[in-house]
Amino acid sequence: MIKTQQKGAFITFEGGEGAGKSSLIKEIQNQLTSLYKLSTHVTREPGGSQGAETIRELLVQGDKEKWDRLTEVFLLSAARRDHLAKCIWPKLNQGTWVLCDRFFDSTCVYQGYAPEEDDKVSLSTIHNIGNMIFGNFKPNLTFILDVDPEIGLMRSQKKLSTQKQGQKEDRFETMPLHYHQKVRAAFLDIAHKEPERCRVIDASQAPEEIFIETMQHITNFFSLSEKQNMS
Amino acid sequence: MIKTQQKGAFITFEGGEGAGKSSLIKEIQNQLTSLYKLSTHVTREPGGSQGAETIRELLVQGDKEKWDRLTEVFLLSAARRDHLAKCIWPKLNQGTWVLCDRFFDSTCVYQGYAPEEDDKVSLSTIHNIGNMIFGNFKPNLTFILDVDPEIGLMRSQKKLSTQKQGQKEDRFETMPLHYHQKVRAAFLDIAHKEPERCRVIDASQAPEEIFIETMQHITNFFSLSEKQNMS
Repeated sequence: MIKTQQKGAFITFEGGEGAGKSSLIKEIQNQLTSLYKLSTHVTREPGGSQGAETIRELLVQGDKEKWDRLTEVFLLSAARRDHLAKCIWPKLNQGTWVLCDRFFDSTCVYQGYAPEEDDKVSLSTIHNIGNMIFGNFKPNLTFILDVDPEIGLMRSQKKLSTQKQGQKEDRFETMPLHYHQKVRAAFLDIAHKEPERCRVIDASQAPEEIFIETMQHITNFFSLSEKQNMS
Repeated sequence: MIKTQQKGAFITFEGGEGAGKSSLIKEIQNQLTSLYKLSTHVTREPGGSQGAETIRELLVQGDKEKWDRLTEVFLLSAARRDHLAKCIWPKLNQGTWVLCDRFFDSTCVYQGYAPEEDDKVSLSTIHNIGNMIFGNFKPNLTFILDVDPEIGLMRSQKKLSTQKQGQKEDRFETMPLHYHQKVRAAFLDIAHKEPERCRVIDASQAPEEIFIETMQHITNFFSLSEKQNMS
């Protein structure tokens, strides 16, 4: 089995639709590279490695009800394992800082917490599978971008309307507001349970404020200062 | 979660390459349909349902080392769950007899028993995942078609040579003889551990003899006689 001797840091970004994860991640990457001279890599889930991206296609294309919830968890887990084995662990072992748009917490939320009672996969099953995939490995730091679903969905719709038909991945955007409220509460629950790993960011703020607050957490947590080179 | 109120019988066929599973299954189906007036469905793993067949493509195409062994188990498990949820359980609930070319035992053998020590997934992990997918559900009867790998591989090569390039799925045929001996021993170990479910068939016999012996086991096990209709 693959093992990791982690030299770089692994930071994940979680949250509902329209929280502004992807633009924030790009800015964080720029800052870590230019100001702190770190080797960085931005990635996403599901996907992030060649194999995992082919699995992502199976997940996001076609009918929303195409897969049984547990099948979805296995597909996500296959993608996650490939992503870790082929991308995340090798990068971390080389000393690269990996910034990931969604990770294991999203599986807990979208397959465990949020579905209807008779359709959800139990959190214990999801954690059991997580343990098979990565053992005790977890992100050093996780940002939960928290925003009222009504604001998030409005932003998300705006983004979708500018995408071409083939790029659209709107599996969750079309769900009712009630669902997105459950998603929000679920992420906050995870943050509450793992305060040492998770930082909740008020994502209703302006992008500039979100960026400054997130960078402050990162520099504090990793004791980054001046232009030192951690790798 | 999906539950099964099984009315039909679930029979699986396992064994190494070139054991003659697929032609045997067709003959069994013909007999069960014509002589015993049963509703039957022939299927295979990985695959057997629309979704699972798309997952099969990810598994069999491209480099043999494309997936980490555990990733492979998750992909197989996603395919199996889809196959059960969309095909096997609904068919069994309708009273159809389902004949399946490979099932869970193949995952135990090819991902658990047969790989090199540092590359295998533990049988306890595979069984743990199996339990998530189907709980206590298992085949009513499993035939292990047992043949000396030297004979099996010769048959298998012959079959491959008549297939077009695009159809070729020779991930295992190219493995060394030693590997196929481990595969054979693994299937026999499963049969030894679950004698109530498994029947070992000497697949070095002529196809006609294999067919007669297998049908005898089926008629005995399910008390089929004359032209009764079990469904």
